[in-house]
Order: sequence, then C-alpha cells, then structure tokens
Amino acid sequence: MPKITFKHEDDSSVSIDVAEGVSLLEAARLANVAIDAPCSGNGSCGKCRVRIAEGAAESEFTRHINKEDEEQGWRLACLSKAKGDVTVEVPDIASAYKSRMKVADISSGKEIEIFTNIQKDIANAGIEFGCGASVLEITLDEPSLDDTMPDDERLERAIKAASGAEKVHIPYSVLRTLPETLRAAGFKVRCTVINDNGNLIVYRVASSDDKTPACGIAIDIGTTSVTGILADLSDGNILAKASSGNGQIRFGADVIHRIVEQEKPGGRDKLQKAVIQETLIPLIQIMQKAAKVPAESIIRLTIAGNSTMNHLLLGIDAGPLRREPYIPAFFHCEPVFASDLGLPVNPDARIHIMPNIGSYVGGDITAGTLASMIWNKEEIELFIDLGTNGELVLGNDSFLMSCACSAGPAFEGGEISCGMRATDGAAEACTIDRDTMEPKLSIIGDSELIGLCGSGLIDVIAELYRCGIVDAKGKFVREGERVKHNEHGMGRFVLATRSDGREVSITEGDIDNFIRAKGSIFSAIMTMLQALDMDVSVIDSVYVAGGIGSGIDMDNAVRIGMLPDIERERYHYIGNSSLAGAYAALTGKAAEEKISELAKNMTYLELSTVPGYMDSFVAACFLPHTDISLFPSVQG
Amino acid sequence: MPKITFKHEDDSSVSIDVAEGVSLLEAARLANVAIDAPCSGNGSCGKCRVRIAEGAAESEFTRHINKEDEEQGWRLACLSKAKGDVTVEVPDIASAYKSRMKVADISSGKEIEIFTNIQKDIANAGIEFGCGASVLEITLDEPSLDDTMPDDERLERAIKAASGAEKVHIPYSVLRTLPETLRAAGFKVRCTVINDNGNLIVYRVASSDDKTPACGIAIDIGTTSVTGILADLSDGNILAKASSGNGQIRFGADVIHRIVEQEKPGGRDKLQKAVIQETLIPLIQIMQKAAKVPAESIIRLTIAGNSTMNHLLLGIDAGPLRREPYIPAFFHCEPVFASDLGLPVNPDARIHIMPNIGSYVGGDITAGTLASMIWNKEEIELFIDLGTNGELVLGNDSFLMSCACSAGPAFEGGEISCGMRATDGAAEACTIDRDTMEPKLSIIGDSELIGLCGSGLIDVIAELYRCGIVDAKGKFVREGERVKHNEHGMGRFVLATRSDGREVSITEGDIDNFIRAKGSIFSAIMTMLQALDMDVSVIDSVYVAGGIGSGIDMDNAVRIGMLPDIERERYHYIGNSSLAGAYAALTGKAAEEKISELAKNMTYLELSTVPGYMDSFVAACFLPHTDISLFPSVQG
Repeated sequence: MPKITFKHEDDSSVSIDVAEGVSLLEAARLANVAIDAPCSGNGSCGKCRVRIAEGAAESEFTRHINKEDEEQGWRLACLSKAKGDVTVEVPDIASAYKSRMKVADISSGKEIEIFTNIQKDIANAGIEFGCGASVLEITLDEPSLDDTMPDDERLERAIKAASGAEKVHIPYSVLRTLPETLRAAGFKVRCTVINDNGNLIVYRVASSDDKTPACGIAIDIGTTSVTGILADLSDGNILAKASSGNGQIRFGADVIHRIVEQEKPGGRDKLQKAVIQETLIPLIQIMQKAAKVPAESIIRLTIAGNSTMNHLLLGIDAGPLRREPYIPAFFHCEPVFASDLGLPVNPDARIHIMPNIGSYVGGDITAGTLASMIWNKEEIELFIDLGTNGELVLGNDSFLMSCACSAGPAFEGGEISCGMRATDGAAEACTIDRDTMEPKLSIIGDSELIGLCGSGLIDVIAELYRCGIVDAKGKFVREGERVKHNEHGMGRFVLATRSDGREVSITEGDIDNFIRAKGSIFSAIMTMLQALDMDVSVIDSVYVAGGIGSGIDMDNAVRIGMLPDIERERYHYIGNSSLAGAYAALTGKAAEEKISELAKNMTYLELSTVPGYMDSFVAACFLPHTDISLFPSVQG
Repeated sequence: MPKITFKHEDDSSVSIDVAEGVSLLEAARLANVAIDAPCSGNGSCGKCRVRIAEGAAESEFTRHINKEDEEQGWRLACLSKAKGDVTVEVPDIASAYKSRMKVADISSGKEIEIFTNIQKDIANAGIEFGCGASVLEITLDEPSLDDTMPDDERLERAIKAASGAEKVHIPYSVLRTLPETLRAAGFKVRCTVINDNGNLIVYRVASSDDKTPACGIAIDIGTTSVTGILADLSDGNILAKASSGNGQIRFGADVIHRIVEQEKPGGRDKLQKAVIQETLIPLIQIMQKAAKVPAESIIRLTIAGNSTMNHLLLGIDAGPLRREPYIPAFFHCEPVFASDLGLPVNPDARIHIMPNIGSYVGGDITAGTLASMIWNKEEIELFIDLGTNGELVLGNDSFLMSCACSAGPAFEGGEISCGMRATDGAAEACTIDRDTMEPKLSIIGDSELIGLCGSGLIDVIAELYRCGIVDAKGKFVREGERVKHNEHGMGRFVLATRSDGREVSITEGDIDNFIRAKGSIFSAIMTMLQALDMDVSVIDSVYVAGGIGSGIDMDNAVRIGMLPDIERERYHYIGNSSLAGAYAALTGKAAEEKISELAKNMTYLELSTVPGYMDSFVAACFLPHTDISLFPSVQG
C-alpha cells in the first residue's frame, strides 16, 4: 500500500496508507486534508492542484496544468494516483475555496449594520419585533413542612405569578437538575423562557447572579458558505457573527453533485455529518465563545438554506429533488429540537427551518425575500440572490414570482481556477490600466492575493473587455506581458505572482464559465419579465444579495451583461439576505410568520418550460450580449 | 494488586485486579459479578455469602456465618478482603435475590387474567378504554408534474381524509425517512398514529404489507422487581410480559440506601444506568422479541414506581426526598420522550410517569389505587401494597387517605438470609407437620429450592409459631432435628438441604426482621383507622397487592398478626396493582386521567407525626400481638 504524505505550506504534514489506484484527492479526503474539488473530482474545475515533491504519480492529461508547471511536479489531485510512496505539497490555495472559520469583528458596527437596517425596515413595515424570549427574576417561597409543594410546581407557581403566563412547561432537561439548582441558588433564580401566547417554556434556570441573556442563533447554510449570527433575543443585539465554508464542499460544489453523492450508500449520513459536525457545531461554538454565553442560554435557532441544504441538514433523501416530478420531502418543516441534530445549544431549543417553496427555491430565498422588502411596495422590484445558484424573485405587494437558474458556483468562486469565497485573500474589486494593462486589485483582509471572489471576477472580466484584452466571446485578443498562452493555445491573464512564485491568473476557461453564469442570470430576468409580459422598464429597484461580495460594482455587472441596463442607482447590494431574513425570524415571531406567508403566496416559474429560454440564454453568453441594443449605456 | 477470580456454579469465571483493601463485594461490583447486597454491604443482611476456594481472605466476624461454614471457607463478601490472589466461589443463591430476566408464558392466559379482570372492572366503572392509537391504511395520490405537493403535506392530506383529524403532526423521526418509505411502498402505506382529540401524531409509516399493530408498554419499577407488559394499544391485548430484578439492587435493597448512594459523586448516573441500561432496556427488548414487533411500533409507555424510583429513573436528585421537609422534584411529571431516556422503542413515544403524591407515596400507589377499585364503592375498603415498602390507602368513593410504613424489603425477601423474590426456586407456601416438624414446601417453577419469597416466609413463620417451634417473640423454643443453634446460641430452622450440600434455613434474625416488617404494616393500619376515629369493623374489603407472592395465605398473614383479624373472605390478593394500573393508563387515556384525579384527591398521613404510632408498632412486634384480644380467631 502506498504511503501518501500531505505537506502544507506551514510544514505540517499528514500521512496515510491507501490502496493502489486511489486518487490523491480521495486519499486527501480519507486523511481529512482539505483540498477543494468543486467539480467533485472529475478533472473539470482545476482547483485541486498539488505538487509531487517526492516520489512519482501517474496522472491523466489536463488542460489545467501547463507544461512548465507539469515539469515542476504540479498535478491535479483528482487525476493522479501514487506510484509507491509519495510526498504531496498542498498549497494553501488548494483549500482556499473551503476557507477556515472566521469570526467577524462586530465592534465597529459595520459588519452588522446591514442586518440592523433590515430589522428597522421590517419594523417600519409593521411587523412586530419579539419572539417572546426573556429572562425572569424569580424568588420562590422556600419549602417547609407546611408547604411541601414539589420543586416543579413551586417554580411554576412563581413563574405564573411573575409572568402572568397561563401555562408553564418545564422540559425534562430543566427538571433534571432542578432540585440542586434551586437549592444551590437559595431559591432565588433567573429563568430563561419563551412565552408563546401564554404558553411559557422554561429553558434554563440559573442562580440569580448569572446575568446571561436569552440568546438565539440564525444561520444561513449556503451551498458554499455558512454564516451565523448569535443575538440577544430580548433586543436583537448581535453578540457574535461568524462564517466558514460548508464542509460538504468536498463532495461537490453545487447541489446536484451533493444530491448524487448522498444517494451513494452511507452518503446521507456523510453529507449530514459534513454540515453538522464539521460546519455548524464549530461555527456555533466559536460564536458562543465569542459572545461569552453558555450553550444552554441559546434557546432558539433559525436556519435558512436552499431546499437541498435543508434536506441534507436533516438527513432526508434529497434524491427526489433532482428527478421528475421534483418532489421535496417538505416545504414547511415543523421545528425540530436542537438535540435531534446534536447541536451544542440548549437541547430543547427549537430549530425553525425557513420554508422551501419548491425543489429549487428554498428557505434562503423565502427568508431573503422578507429581507429584500420587495413585498412591501407598490412598485415592482427585483430581488436577485447570487449564491451558488442564482434565484430571482420579482414582484410587489400584490404578487411575487420566483425562478431559479443553474448559474453554477461561479459567483462564489466555484469552477473558476482562481476563484474563491469573498474572504481574506480574495480580490473583491479590480481596475486595469487600458494602456499598461496593469491591474490594481483590492484585496479583502490583511493577506496576500489568493484568488478572486465573485465581485472581483466581474471587475476583472469587465476591465479585460473594456481594455480590449478579451473580445465579446471572452477570448484573449491583445498581446502583452501579462497575457500568456499555454501549449494548447489557451490564453490567460496573470493578475499577480505570489511570493511563493505561483501565478494567480484568470484563464479563458474561467471567463467562459463566468460568461455562462452571468448569461443564465440575465436570461432568467428577461424570461421572467417576458412571462409577465413586461420589460426591464417596469423594474423600480433591484436588490442584489449573496456571496458574490460586498464590493460588487453594479456598473461593471451591467457592462458585462449580467444585469439589465437600467440606472445604476436602482441597484442595491443587500448582502446576505438569507441570513438577514433568518435573523429577523429569529428575533421576531411575526417576521417568521411573514416569511411563511410570503412562501405560500409566491409562485414559481420553471424556466425550462418557457419557450425561448434556451435561445435567450445562448444569446446572453457574450460580453455584454449578442443583442447590443439591450445595453445602450455600454455601447458608447 | 490482588487478583480476584469469581467462580460461578456453572464453572464460568471472571477475574479482576483490585487495590489492596477492597472488599470482595466491591470487587464483584467492579467485575460486574452479581452478588446481592440488600443491606448495601454493611454486613447486616447476610446475603452475600461466598466461599474462598483458593487463597486467603481477611474477614470481620459476623453472626451470619457459623463456625462450621467458616471452616469450609464461607465468608460474607462485604466483610472480607483478599490477602493476595484468591478464588471466590459465588453460589447461585448469592445472586438469587437479583434474579435473571424472565419472560412470562402468557399462552395459558393465567398470567394475564388478573390484568384483564381489572381492565373489565375499570370499564364497568365507566372509564372509557382507548388512548387514540390505531394503524391507518393510507393510499396517497402519486406525485406528478401537475401535483407537486411535498411528501409530508401529501401524507398529511391523505391522513386527514382517512381519519378526520384536524391536525396532523409528522415528527422528525418519521419525516427523515419519508421519501424512501413512500416510494418503496408505492405510496400505499400503513401509518401507526395516536389521535388525541383531533391532534394526530404519526409515529411510524410502513409498507402496506407490514401488519404490525400499534403497541405500548406498561412497566412497574419496583425497588426490588421490575415487571412489564407489552400490549396492542387498539384492543389492550397483552402480547408479552416479562420481569426481572431491579439492577439498582446492588446499591442497596431499600429506597434510603439508594438515595444515599445517588448522592455520592457520579451516583445519579450510576443509579440511572442501573435501572435503564441494565434493567429496562433488556426487559423491553425481551418483550419486543417475544411479541415479534419492531421497536418503532412501540409508541406509548406508562411507568409506575415509587417516588424514589421515579426520580432515579429520570436521573433527578432524590436527596431532598429523605431530608426534611421531604420535597420531591415533581408529583406529576409531563411525559418525557423515549429518546430522552434512550429506551429502545419509537424515539417519539411519550413516557407517561404515574404521579407521586409525596416523598413516600408514589406512582405505584396512585396507579395501584385505580386498580384496587376502592375509589368506586360506597363501602370503606383498604388497599395494601406490600412491596419493598408498605403503603396503604383507605377510603371509598368520597375520600382516600394514604400512608407509608418503612416495612423494609422483607416482603420481597430482602434482609432475610434465605429471602428472595417470588420467582423460580422460591418457596411460596409451606405447611409444617406439628408432630414430625417436617416442612412441606411449594416451590415456584421447575427448580430446586433456593429460598423463601414473602408469602413463603409468612407461611413458615405462621407454621413455626402454630407448631410451637418458635414463641411469640420468634425465638426457637422446641428441640428437633431441624432446629439448630450456632455457637452464639442463635437458632435456625433447616427447611431443606440442597443437592450442593447447602442448607436453606430461616434464622431467628430473619424472623426478627420479618416480625418488624409485619408489625409496621399492622400498626400502620391501626394508626390510620385511629386517625379517622374508626376501627377494623368499618373495613368492608382488603386488597393486598405486591411482590409478596400470589400464594399469600391470608389466614396465616392474620395469624402472625400482620393483617387485622377480620373474616378471611374480605381479603383479596390483586397481584401487581401498580402494573395493573399502569397497564390501564397505557391503554386508556381516561384511566390515566383518573389516576391523576385520584392522586390529586388523596390525602397523606405521615405516621411519625401521629402520637402513639411508635407504641403501636412496638406492641405489634410479637406473634401475633402483645394485645391478643385483637386476634380473637387466633386465640383458640
């Protein structure tokens, strides 16, 4: 059995013995070494580049590795098998896509501003704040021979007196430690409760000097990224925010790959573990530590994800989602207990999963629609979520129509050789000097350039086109120091050379993938408008959300033909609308109910059934479009 | 470290290395070797007799081992420490008290007759049968592109149509496998449900050829014995019955010893594990196998136990039960989920715990009171549960008064050197020839005599007294072949010599313990009557329940002064009333509610606060009583 040693840039290493014929990518998965494979290991995305430092590997040919790199030992892990023992260098970039957990710095207020603004908009729309959570200060009568009421009834009596609740429920988890808690606290306690229309559930009983608030967590489970907010439920105050890659990424970048993977024997458990054990549990724990609150004080959770993410989270077969007639197990799932999923919070905390409306429009969109506020105005507005899939909702206070386009993961850096999530090391904006062709990159965090996130990709492509470096088909047509071609004639533009000597560049393949992604968005917008017998002029405002990056330049997005050519002031980037909606539902029962109402009233347009959609898509796969008249402001 | 090897009669053996100074009993516990220690290992009960076969032990003196036996190597395990490596023979009798699991043979109907009769009585009293459980045959519309309702709503719609339920709840455990279940079954399924006033919970969805009924389990958790019934919830049909010792026995025979033990560090977990892992789980599994039903079909449980057992089952500190002002954590616990306790049944099955009314009158008595039917008549009747503790309820259809007497575990064989539970190998009845002093024993099961259960003890003591072999104080006063005295002058009566050469005998110490137990029952009855300003003549009928054994001879019980001297026809043995009540509550929601109502209306008399109780007890510690005028029928 060959021994494979994976060596990271920080010199740490992991070894594993594997059977003959196992690919280096599979070996890395077995050894728990993070190597991205958005294409699920079929050689198409080119992101699993590793270098054979010692020993030899047998590799298939790939357009992603040029001759020079090949000579230096670079291979795609998915297409290579060890010949005997090998040492494999894993560059940081190989796991950049699945980035490490990151706790947001909320001290400046900037990170949370967008969420609190949306909360205000929701409140202004008359949707009441509050989920009934509070902490009650309770002093019980001490028991005596004349007052021998049992502990639970004694607590119940005192809570009823203090809160006016008609019914008090003390769950087993609280009852279990009640005798010692009451006695250690001298019968003076603070009770963390949720009062739901007079039915009050006691989640935690602590001594009177424990000042922990009633907390909750809202989580957006994206196909690529997972982000959470830990908040004080009484006032909505955000106590922590964190994000990480979705641990399921190694099983494929998009929902279809994941669904296929979960259909294999043991696949459902594997996918569920990847999101719960590897992603949600560390994410929750890191927020809990950052907020300095005990796990039991977290008593309510909301989760927004697309339909596939929701199914995989619950370990429910997602197979029917991808097969005609495309039936989910549920639209609206009754809350499950935190203990059902083993989340490290109060075991009785209910997890409220934002409702799906179909196989391809899920809780991220229903929650996001609330946050977009398009349901609250007379004017027709458009909400676009540019996640790993692209979903659109068009409507106003009297109708809402949704559709989904399989844009692929390009907006979050998937299937782009230099792509990555909008996190440290990602270029989120770019300008290129028309004369010198020198790029100027704006990089997130205090980091050397690793790659491009969605907004960076838009800028780079828009600038390459503006400077005449690529043509309308995305082919390199201008010579220059930074423009290179490999032995197969495929062009690339070198954005930077890193201190380790590695190039960060964007290839014709990347541009081609991105053009398809932006084309699918644009044609979806046009198809939906046509289905309603409308044109772009009806759109009053457009709200763009998603992991594409807060640096998104709407002008550039129009210039490459991704978004329709309307006044740029009508465009607004609203960040992670899925999380914003989940956060609103966390802190407001009325907001949660509003999301359900929106979900019930939203219609769904299946694009593939609309005649002309494919033609529209093909026409949009140019910079900016085959029909340049659609982009009057770009013409000049 | 000494190596201790425990050898059983079947020649199997277990070895363990222990630190110097560890008693053989503790070593046995560590090695998981069953040796009874009802007195919790303080040398008082004499039940942990073992024989040192090889090596040497250092033992304290004990009246329980006579010289002859000592010379043969017999020791009390609790009072002995190994001196170097030893081999210890563990006779079967050393674990007879904690007997093995036993599945009842219900084919003859005899085992279950008593329960079905009580069910009939309850039904005749107008208490409606039924807990809403049923199995619905459901055919769903197959999904299509024109009918894309998600699986859960599709099932809900079909169930509502079939059942008329207003609300259907599909728990996560069912939702989780719903897509593949529906598709594998071709959308024709059988749903196991409980319909609670129009709120219907779906516990199980199976294919239409799975004919399993909706099942439930009722369990009586006694301090000594645990017994369960598995029944078809739709008609109450008993599908299996089984019993075993309570695994907590090795931590002490009575509730006080157990409470003390659970207060030690880690004690609560240990006690909870002993009853759940070692007792309930195997008991449930053995019934489930006997009934040939899958675990998930068991969807409702009722459990009756005394207050201490209820607390220890739930892992709740029972310490306050034994300390003034004697406060339980709960009287009426809301149902807990089977998954909360890890029981091998449907994870969403609710466990309904029969309500306590105080620290010393628990769910076994409230459930038993229902089964006794004393609440349904105008005449005043007495219900006595002779378990490890003795509890009494006196009353009729307008009042109920309860009390508890610390009779100790004698009625179930505890703290009696030859005592055991009423199971295979126990003598449950006995006559002694006045002339020859030859005993004639009636032994349960197809087994050699191992010891005496409660009813056997009553008979032996009554007969010893009737034959003049012991006097009113329980001292041996007649000579004979079977009457022996040890070197300290303590008498014993040899009931039999087993094939292994071991004597089964009853000692003066045993008789003394039993006289105290019966004295506490009698004085409790008298004290309660006095508190109500009544005498025995008001008692119309007496219902005796408990583990004392179905062979109880009421005449003998009166002759030894345990029960008042009223017409013997007024006495009725009603078996395990706690289990009968739990079984009624399992199959009937109305019965469960009736138990709660009885619990709420039952008053409690704390005997120790009644002047004269101690005198009354002391006076009753004779055969039959110091005041012989109370026993006119015995005088002759």
